[in-house]
Amino acid sequence: MSGTAFLKGHGTQNDFVIVPDPDGRLELSAAAVAELCDRRAGIGADGVLRVVRSAAEPDAAAMAGQAEWFMDYRNADGSIAEMCGNGVRVFARYLVHAGYAKPGELAVATRGGVKKVRIAEDAADGAPGEITVDMGRAVLPGPDDITVTVDGRSWPALNVNMGNPHAVAFVEDLAHAGNLYDAPATAPAGAYPQGVNVEFVVDRGERHVAMRVHERGSGETRSCGTGACAVAVAAIRRAGLNPAETGRAVSWTVDLPGGRLVIEEFPDGRIEMTGPAVIVAEGVLR
Amino acid sequence: MSGTAFLKGHGTQNDFVIVPDPDGRLELSAAAVAELCDRRAGIGADGVLRVVRSAAEPDAAAMAGQAEWFMDYRNADGSIAEMCGNGVRVFARYLVHAGYAKPGELAVATRGGVKKVRIAEDAADGAPGEITVDMGRAVLPGPDDITVTVDGRSWPALNVNMGNPHAVAFVEDLAHAGNLYDAPATAPAGAYPQGVNVEFVVDRGERHVAMRVHERGSGETRSCGTGACAVAVAAIRRAGLNPAETGRAVSWTVDLPGGRLVIEEFPDGRIEMTGPAVIVAEGVLR
Repeated sequence: MSGTAFLKGHGTQNDFVIVPDPDGRLELSAAAVAELCDRRAGIGADGVLRVVRSAAEPDAAAMAGQAEWFMDYRNADGSIAEMCGNGVRVFARYLVHAGYAKPGELAVATRGGVKKVRIAEDAADGAPGEITVDMGRAVLPGPDDITVTVDGRSWPALNVNMGNPHAVAFVEDLAHAGNLYDAPATAPAGAYPQGVNVEFVVDRGERHVAMRVHERGSGETRSCGTGACAVAVAAIRRAGLNPAETGRAVSWTVDLPGGRLVIEEFPDGRIEMTGPAVIVAEGVLR
Repeated sequence: MSGTAFLKGHGTQNDFVIVPDPDGRLELSAAAVAELCDRRAGIGADGVLRVVRSAAEPDAAAMAGQAEWFMDYRNADGSIAEMCGNGVRVFARYLVHAGYAKPGELAVATRGGVKKVRIAEDAADGAPGEITVDMGRAVLPGPDDITVTVDGRSWPALNVNMGNPHAVAFVEDLAHAGNLYDAPATAPAGAYPQGVNVEFVVDRGERHVAMRVHERGSGETRSCGTGACAVAVAAIRRAGLNPAETGRAVSWTVDLPGGRLVIEEFPDGRIEMTGPAVIVAEGVLR
């Protein structure tokens, strides 16, 4: 990888190494991704975003008519992932940074299909505009008796599936979630055979909550895009404002340890996530 | 800091953001250092090495006659530190990388005084030569009855001071050290009023050990230069090979989670540490 250009960026502190490869010439092995993402021996990140023209990527060529650019997203361990909401925002920021796109509407090809992105104009003071990404729809499969337990304290939780499973528990104090090194216990047994991401939520004000999250396999993280969506959906249902019933879109502000996201749910069930995305540095691997 | 050039490097996975500032023009505030070292929102590192000519730095001008370059070392939280053995190796690697120094002997000014460094020639296959740094002398202040306890199991430990305090315990299995999130308990009470770095050590072969370390304030780390020296001194004493008594220098190989160091103790008590130092990337902050 020596000589390879890279950038480092993050969305609400979910961070990525961006590897520009417009013509699809790079072989990015799982081992190379894991090395790049190693936080001591490499650059360090939650994942890699390889930026390649859809037409130059066999996996994405069928989407080339709808989306010029393909986000080849890899997890930090080198495995392949379909989608990442914070990653798409950082990906879009890079396209603007590099002059490949302009603020406005943009379509990005991913392994999870073509995603619509909206990039706001930069503020008058030069602050980069926030980026909105379509996160699909939530499914609430039940059961209704899910509980989450930490340090002997239990709360009822809502099962929200955003393509991945979440258990959302409203608590009195985010400190009650404990250290979140280990996965909180969930019941009934078998509710989450593949494990679950667990969100702890407190009210912060009108249509405004704060959360902490345990991501399965990672422990506590500073941001989780699908987790923020799951939390907003749970808060909207709890307030009796389900857009599918009222016919009116609802926005909820969600504060995560790594920053603030705004989640909007529409009457057709579609969910949009809006938040910052930042390029921190760019350079060359040695 | 936008537009500032940086490099990322590590020595046995103790990692640093290197900020070249030969003419001492940068104001590097504690807040800026903490931002740079943030592993999600910044570049991420254990500390910052600002590279400045001694003559251009008021703190170091008195050393300019002995050492052209001053290592302005900062901890990840922005606080100032005197010295860092792994940091000096990475600092020296940078000087060679940048063309400011050549393999051979080199003197580096630090807040802990002028440090002698020896840079080996690169191998025929291009692998960078290892770097040796003088780590000063160990002091063994006692008492003789120190113990370290983890998960109900206790071991006797040697108190080794390398400018900072260490408790070195030989164990049967490095897994017995547990998760090392929290500081292991030490006794007697009051032996380490400022806290202590605790090393767990197993024999690996002749003059060869492996270790894990809990660094006070940081939890388990992948490398600790003074810890490796403390471990080697404890192993040398345990083998009855104290160079001050035998008149012969002794080398010990110490495997850390982040790589291998060789520690040599001389009859005059001087300790040298030899190991790798790597530049991973270089770039510009955005």
